[in-house]
Amino acid sequence: MNYRQSLSNYYIKYNSILCMGMDPILSKIPVQENDTKKKIYCFYEEILNEIVKTKKYPACVKPNYAFYARYGFPGLEALYDLIKLYRKNDLPVILDVKRGDIGTTAEAYAEESFDFFEADAVTLSPYLGHDSIEPFTKKYENKGFYILCKTSNKSSGELQDKMIDGKPLYLVVASYLSSWDNGGIGAVAGATYPDQLKAILDEFSKSGKVLPLLIPGVGTQGGDLEAIVKTINAYDISLHRINASSSINFAYEKNGGNFAVAAANEIDKLNNEISKIIGN
Amino acid sequence: MNYRQSLSNYYIKYNSILCMGMDPILSKIPVQENDTKKKIYCFYEEILNEIVKTKKYPACVKPNYAFYARYGFPGLEALYDLIKLYRKNDLPVILDVKRGDIGTTAEAYAEESFDFFEADAVTLSPYLGHDSIEPFTKKYENKGFYILCKTSNKSSGELQDKMIDGKPLYLVVASYLSSWDNGGIGAVAGATYPDQLKAILDEFSKSGKVLPLLIPGVGTQGGDLEAIVKTINAYDISLHRINASSSINFAYEKNGGNFAVAAANEIDKLNNEISKIIGN
Repeated sequence: MNYRQSLSNYYIKYNSILCMGMDPILSKIPVQENDTKKKIYCFYEEILNEIVKTKKYPACVKPNYAFYARYGFPGLEALYDLIKLYRKNDLPVILDVKRGDIGTTAEAYAEESFDFFEADAVTLSPYLGHDSIEPFTKKYENKGFYILCKTSNKSSGELQDKMIDGKPLYLVVASYLSSWDNGGIGAVAGATYPDQLKAILDEFSKSGKVLPLLIPGVGTQGGDLEAIVKTINAYDISLHRINASSSINFAYEKNGGNFAVAAANEIDKLNNEISKIIGN
Repeated sequence: MNYRQSLSNYYIKYNSILCMGMDPILSKIPVQENDTKKKIYCFYEEILNEIVKTKKYPACVKPNYAFYARYGFPGLEALYDLIKLYRKNDLPVILDVKRGDIGTTAEAYAEESFDFFEADAVTLSPYLGHDSIEPFTKKYENKGFYILCKTSNKSSGELQDKMIDGKPLYLVVASYLSSWDNGGIGAVAGATYPDQLKAILDEFSKSGKVLPLLIPGVGTQGGDLEAIVKTINAYDISLHRINASSSINFAYEKNGGNFAVAAANEIDKLNNEISKIIGN
């Protein structure tokens, strides 16, 4: 089963296109525990337990490597164990690492993500061209590869919007992605740029394909959920994933109560909002 | 002391512009040891001992994160210890991580590189624009930041050579780098593209600056050492670093003998070749 099929299957299984970002910030984790590894692990373990208990599932999760690596080995050990734990509970893991390097180095990074961490998908940077993507797609046929296309941040346009023969760079990247696709290639497209996100899907359509989008930027970053959901609903919604990190992870800050209950409720709320928009 | 001054100082101290890449490949390490961490650590420890004993110094070293991360925690622990060891012996460390992410994530990555690993410099990707660079340059004023400009691999032109208003993307990046510079910004420019490397230095000149280059691609990748050295010699050679990884690390494969002796001799040979070209 290739990655695209797996996306559709999990959409059906959980009736969700939500991706729960897992970006730990120690000072915000209300777990009484001094050990960094245990503190991070327990936080996301409790959230998972609540998800399973209440069946308020996202379609997948996305730990961001940086938020673990900043805490050194205890952070990375928590990441390693959490990937295993979530996958054991049948939640696919997108490891957000944004790797991008020349061929032999890309091979090593692919081994890191898929052989060591055993992720289901990764994020990658396109700046080095297909040399840096192929070592991933060739060896790991059934994994997912989300390549940065139009990112959610303010300065993303400095390079990504530059016009090349009448086409912005992010669409040049999008057209490469269609040609590199092995059944597992997708794109990162920020919710903060809804028009550009639609343009990316239109660019894919030219090759007769719908490549899966990973969409950060709703919630704290301010992307318009309704506009995004309406757009992707016209392009096989089962393939796309909308990510929310801190608005789920730290929902207790806004809504009070137990952090795990608050997180699961926020997942449920977002799932319901999305279902309403698509009229499910 | 800012990074640029430190580059000049180490050039004087070691009479070298050579950067020794440290890219371990377990199957090529002739150390009788089953423990992965010890095997990698001992390999580079013996090379360092030989460097110190014979005074055949490079100007700095550059471990590539991927080659450690592929071996999981034992690899990363070796990386951590080796950074400490080389810095204790007054060899600056460029941590080759090619990070590139949005602001809050970039902050976390900067902490990883400088607070956890305690590197002297890092490599970064420009695809997300200045949001992804500033968290590094603002907080870590005396560190070095090499941003991918024109990479050494075959497919680098797919994005990097695309023309934008008559200027290739890699030169658009170069002109951004001049404007982002805080005294620590440099560029990665592959030796396999000597004309483009010169164009990058010319682009920097427009702002009256020489930004330091990190130059991979000589040795195994086939870049022309003489052409590169002649070019950078016209732009304050003390600031630039030419990297060679496997040709030094595994010099014993070609030249025979003890691996540490072969590596130190290869460093010496490259240092001498460079000195000859610049007429020192």
